[in-house]
Amino acid sequence: MKVGVIGGGQLGRMLALAGTPLGMQFSFLDPAADACAAALGEHLLGDYDSQQHLKQLAQSVDVVTFEFENVPAETVAYLSQFVPVYPNAESLRIARDRLNEKMLFEKLGIPVTKFADVLSQEGLEQGVAKVGLPAILKTRTMGYDGKGQKVLRSTADVQGAFSELGNVPCLLEGFVDFSSEVSVIAVRARDGEVRCYPLAHNTHHDGILHLSIASQAHPLQSLAEDYASRVLNELEYVGTLGFEFFVVDDGLMANEIAPRVHNSGHWTTEGAQCSQFENHLRAIAGLPLGSTATLEHSAMLNCVGRMPTAQQILQIADTHVHDYNKAEKPGRKVGHITVRCQSEEQLKQRVSQVEQLLQSL
Amino acid sequence: MKVGVIGGGQLGRMLALAGTPLGMQFSFLDPAADACAAALGEHLLGDYDSQQHLKQLAQSVDVVTFEFENVPAETVAYLSQFVPVYPNAESLRIARDRLNEKMLFEKLGIPVTKFADVLSQEGLEQGVAKVGLPAILKTRTMGYDGKGQKVLRSTADVQGAFSELGNVPCLLEGFVDFSSEVSVIAVRARDGEVRCYPLAHNTHHDGILHLSIASQAHPLQSLAEDYASRVLNELEYVGTLGFEFFVVDDGLMANEIAPRVHNSGHWTTEGAQCSQFENHLRAIAGLPLGSTATLEHSAMLNCVGRMPTAQQILQIADTHVHDYNKAEKPGRKVGHITVRCQSEEQLKQRVSQVEQLLQSL
Repeated sequence: MKVGVIGGGQLGRMLALAGTPLGMQFSFLDPAADACAAALGEHLLGDYDSQQHLKQLAQSVDVVTFEFENVPAETVAYLSQFVPVYPNAESLRIARDRLNEKMLFEKLGIPVTKFADVLSQEGLEQGVAKVGLPAILKTRTMGYDGKGQKVLRSTADVQGAFSELGNVPCLLEGFVDFSSEVSVIAVRARDGEVRCYPLAHNTHHDGILHLSIASQAHPLQSLAEDYASRVLNELEYVGTLGFEFFVVDDGLMANEIAPRVHNSGHWTTEGAQCSQFENHLRAIAGLPLGSTATLEHSAMLNCVGRMPTAQQILQIADTHVHDYNKAEKPGRKVGHITVRCQSEEQLKQRVSQVEQLLQSL
Repeated sequence: MKVGVIGGGQLGRMLALAGTPLGMQFSFLDPAADACAAALGEHLLGDYDSQQHLKQLAQSVDVVTFEFENVPAETVAYLSQFVPVYPNAESLRIARDRLNEKMLFEKLGIPVTKFADVLSQEGLEQGVAKVGLPAILKTRTMGYDGKGQKVLRSTADVQGAFSELGNVPCLLEGFVDFSSEVSVIAVRARDGEVRCYPLAHNTHHDGILHLSIASQAHPLQSLAEDYASRVLNELEYVGTLGFEFFVVDDGLMANEIAPRVHNSGHWTTEGAQCSQFENHLRAIAGLPLGSTATLEHSAMLNCVGRMPTAQQILQIADTHVHDYNKAEKPGRKVGHITVRCQSEEQLKQRVSQVEQLLQSL
């Protein structure tokens, strides 16, 4: 089976590593000459909205999928003329726009914070009246890793905030008083079967995911699975999806979904019976899903801006290197490290050693 | 780090899958246009003895390794002018010739069957007088998967046997009365550290490996590790090596070594903390070795001649597909299936299901 991927970054790269043993072959559409997935398949060097390249990709593969959600609806519609595309257009339409996302959560009875659609500075002021302060103003589309966001604590922060974010459609979200952040990675097959991985407990640094620890028998597991299943079934979603939550006093509050393999699920490569990458590919290829059960105790730490050498990492026992072969740049995810141990105690110790290494760079 | 591999078959392919996350990039020298490793790196289309291609490869990588042992000594010597080559020339000289192998085992006090060097039909008859019948006549070099062998049960079988095998240097080996076959996969780092995986219990069909089951606390584990360490240290070997043994009444009798990742170690991809492929690369790159401990209970079954579809395989729970994307041909290894289960009982059941699938093709 030939798989086309829109985007050739690290997620595409890890999809190819997971799919190659299944006999799959990969083609990546990416405008960057140094796209790091290109080492593992054919690289179509072109823009994501280039009909010529989209057609060339679609006509040379059996199925198309995405590495990121910021894909124009027209791209999906265009591709669908030629080849099955997963996840579907509706899933991407919802997931790439924070307003659509929040409205879907509300519709499905999944708790969300107060929010207001903001299309102007005046609209922002009306939104603040409804949502209250503090709040966070976020661009509705194209935001990631804390980009396209501004925290509003006082009325002084509100002034000019809409233009600071570029005079684009925004969403104002009420602050959530949460004790921690968790995510569930869920996968839905073509036949509708849904499987979820154990919740990951996530810690961010400067708005970027720093650490995910796979939980064991988390008390909110079944609630998260229920919410994820509602979304997946409503969207008739096919593939892997990441769903981020805030843990609040009375359960979970939805933060956002990502219609793709997700950074907080990278621990599954070593830490689960079948990884989120392989399960995404199994789903879109119409294959039976793999087990989402854990192997031992796992965590994942991102390498942001700088990549330690394999020598440095592997001196810490129980670690596994995932170097994306990307140029180092402040704030850029250039790799991650997974840790898999026989006990929770040992995992904590190893994670602390990796954190020390990352801080020393 | 850039790694050059002589050979671009399934072993090269699996090396690249293991090394890419470490940030390694791969170049394969292989005369076959459809070399199945080529999807994962640069493919130099050339003969293994082409100095032009060997030089081109050696000058573009940081280290060179091999996918198979039938490499002329001159190739290794030539490559070594430009770049570190692992395993070293001496290891290849020993491992590609059954006579050298047997003599090394004897020198190191590792039990072997009676054997005789055979350079002519007359020499064969002298060999039979020494070794007795039944015996097996094998070409000294280039034999694999039961090729280049003839069983001699009676004096009638002896007649013309030397010319039947092509009038090339042969080794006559006395029949071994063994209860089973096992192998140990061992890896030696640049600094001399040796690690061994748990013994695999191997079953062959028509001279080709059919099934390997990873053992748990095998009573002969430490003996096998002792023998493997003697060989690795004597050769100053760097990388992964497969060592096949016969289990006999009083312990182990050496069969042969393969100076490379080995088919009976393919279960380590899912079944060990760090696979034989990653450990080979860690060794030749001068990185710390990874743990050879098992994860749950594992087995590997070869797909010979025909490859089941991923759909067929994955309908059996706990299986993992390794499709080499090679054209199907009788007797050709085109893929393998690994099985990883929580209990030995379950493993037996899954292996039996996979065997039924393979027989049904």
